[in-house]
Amino acid sequence: MTALKFDLLNTDAETGARRGRLHTRRGCIDTPVFMPVGTQATVKALLPEQLKELGACIILGNTYHLFLRPGHEIIERLGGLHRFMNWDRPILTDSGGFQVFSLGDLRRIDEEGVRFQSHLDGSSHLLTPEISMAVQQALGSDIIMCFDECIPYPAERDYVSASTARSSRWALRCKKSLGADATAALFGIVQGGMYPDLRRRSVEELVEIGFDGYAVGGLSVGEEASVMYEAMDYTLPLLPAHQPRYVMGVGTPENLVEGVARGVDMFDCVMPTRNARNGVLFTRFGKVSIKQARYIEDPLPVDPECACYVCRTYSRAYLRHLYQSGEILASVLNTYHNVHYYLDLMEQMRSAISENEFTSFRREFYRRRETGA
Amino acid sequence: MTALKFDLLNTDAETGARRGRLHTRRGCIDTPVFMPVGTQATVKALLPEQLKELGACIILGNTYHLFLRPGHEIIERLGGLHRFMNWDRPILTDSGGFQVFSLGDLRRIDEEGVRFQSHLDGSSHLLTPEISMAVQQALGSDIIMCFDECIPYPAERDYVSASTARSSRWALRCKKSLGADATAALFGIVQGGMYPDLRRRSVEELVEIGFDGYAVGGLSVGEEASVMYEAMDYTLPLLPAHQPRYVMGVGTPENLVEGVARGVDMFDCVMPTRNARNGVLFTRFGKVSIKQARYIEDPLPVDPECACYVCRTYSRAYLRHLYQSGEILASVLNTYHNVHYYLDLMEQMRSAISENEFTSFRREFYRRRETGA
Repeated sequence: MTALKFDLLNTDAETGARRGRLHTRRGCIDTPVFMPVGTQATVKALLPEQLKELGACIILGNTYHLFLRPGHEIIERLGGLHRFMNWDRPILTDSGGFQVFSLGDLRRIDEEGVRFQSHLDGSSHLLTPEISMAVQQALGSDIIMCFDECIPYPAERDYVSASTARSSRWALRCKKSLGADATAALFGIVQGGMYPDLRRRSVEELVEIGFDGYAVGGLSVGEEASVMYEAMDYTLPLLPAHQPRYVMGVGTPENLVEGVARGVDMFDCVMPTRNARNGVLFTRFGKVSIKQARYIEDPLPVDPECACYVCRTYSRAYLRHLYQSGEILASVLNTYHNVHYYLDLMEQMRSAISENEFTSFRREFYRRRETGA
Repeated sequence: MTALKFDLLNTDAETGARRGRLHTRRGCIDTPVFMPVGTQATVKALLPEQLKELGACIILGNTYHLFLRPGHEIIERLGGLHRFMNWDRPILTDSGGFQVFSLGDLRRIDEEGVRFQSHLDGSSHLLTPEISMAVQQALGSDIIMCFDECIPYPAERDYVSASTARSSRWALRCKKSLGADATAALFGIVQGGMYPDLRRRSVEELVEIGFDGYAVGGLSVGEEASVMYEAMDYTLPLLPAHQPRYVMGVGTPENLVEGVARGVDMFDCVMPTRNARNGVLFTRFGKVSIKQARYIEDPLPVDPECACYVCRTYSRAYLRHLYQSGEILASVLNTYHNVHYYLDLMEQMRSAISENEFTSFRREFYRRRETGA
């Protein structure tokens, strides 16, 4: 496939951290990169122009949500997801699998795929590897994800083994279904739960099929951070070094730093946007819950060292007032700040890796959070 | 008082429509003007920068809401409302009277003022002419409104007469309380209900006291449009021609056109912002309820002739999708469009008056709404 080219620019001398550049049909992306989540054809509360201001180079779209509403065929007839939502940079779409498997009693799985009921109106639907590919192509995705099962944690070895084997069979169907002349890239997703040998088998089966990049799925599903880092430790080194590595649904700022240290190139998570709407703001000193009474008359910005529009312009007192008053602008400003925090953190890591200073960056990152200074 | 200077630039040859310019301590305002409402230190869903992009020259702040939350003293200590909300253009504040009188059973009125219970937490408060002035000054308002009673409709003549007389006594107390060296402008508010002689008496009493401008209160309180226009017809000509005239809480696009035709210079209303959040969009062809199924695949902008960012960028299908999905961006984009519609309508009227073409503007305005073409 030639839809994607990945240049590995530098690998940190002391850790596995990688500085790279991903060339897609809609422009290039410096890695490691964080992808804000645009679930329903919008990154919640932000304009596309604001996302660009913030330096977002790629966002994630959710196949499940767009499949149900307004429907991928409607989006396709309207010129695709990029045009629909006014975003001309790359979009990575998930496969819909994660949301469908999260439906619990509302879904039934077999070798063909998953039958499920919509969380919106209870209507019945089928999602298979082939349908997921067709939907993601209809949306106009630049990076398409294989349809797989995201295995919960904890899970019995037998279940994980069977599920992972099926995900591999589905991965092959995805690749065949997309076809050799697809202009979008296709990523395989490593499963295997928290069993190192099953992770290894999953990697081997996927690499044998051959993808433009590889994701590690089944992380950030409720396990301890140490378990997640261990899984990264035994999985990431198995992946082809010259291809991008994506850890799905991760995570906290600490998770990003630890993921990068272990050689992850791509991340996505609803954390910055969802926390923002709940009044939780990220700073280099840790999290700030802006609703606290202590901020009622605080003239300082959320993070006095932050260079974002919100911190240059508004006081904690104002942000608290907006949040307490249930104002829409609270969500807008809080989201703007949090997305800035996440994208700026990635930028700092990219610089640190380029200068072979990732270890000291990582030490300083933790020191500031621990000392609050 | 010298806080405000009003230049009457042109009066339309056929109607009473006036083209003017209001000079305030924070910049000048072309009239007739519409003031977006920023109830709780934010025009709901918009950034101050977006308001400027839209050409808003002045906004309205609500004394009642800011008095209760976060409190005018806190805002004052944080540098005033302008700094608090990052808006450096003029702000007109209402007196709090309208909201307090709307509380029904939660308020008790006497000559001193109004005792009321907060709609937020039931706490007891007193608002008097003197307190209202102090609050508006603490906020840093550029145009302060007298504390008065907004009389409901319909209302008995005796009640209207007594209430209007008290509002006049309160108006005198407002002026005395503000003092001769105030740097903010002060507007009197004409009451008198729908009784022409009581409106006349109100005007005479207020003009006798002397204000920087005059508002017509007690309109848009549930009366038929024809009753409102009649009240404008017998009230506005009584006001000093060389001073600005403001009709409070008005109104629909038709109300604005009819108000301007009768010599109104200033308007405010929550209609563009509130309707936006309910998915109702203004166009030159009339209102569009964007949630309707007919728009599900409509690639056209809300108003193909509208030059605003939203209409240049997004389809009806996308706006419908955002609204149906409960997305914050729906409120942002819909508000942006509606405020543009209102401000653009005022701009069109200012041009028409300058060119002595207001009558043909008004005819065309109605023709397009009626024919939808």
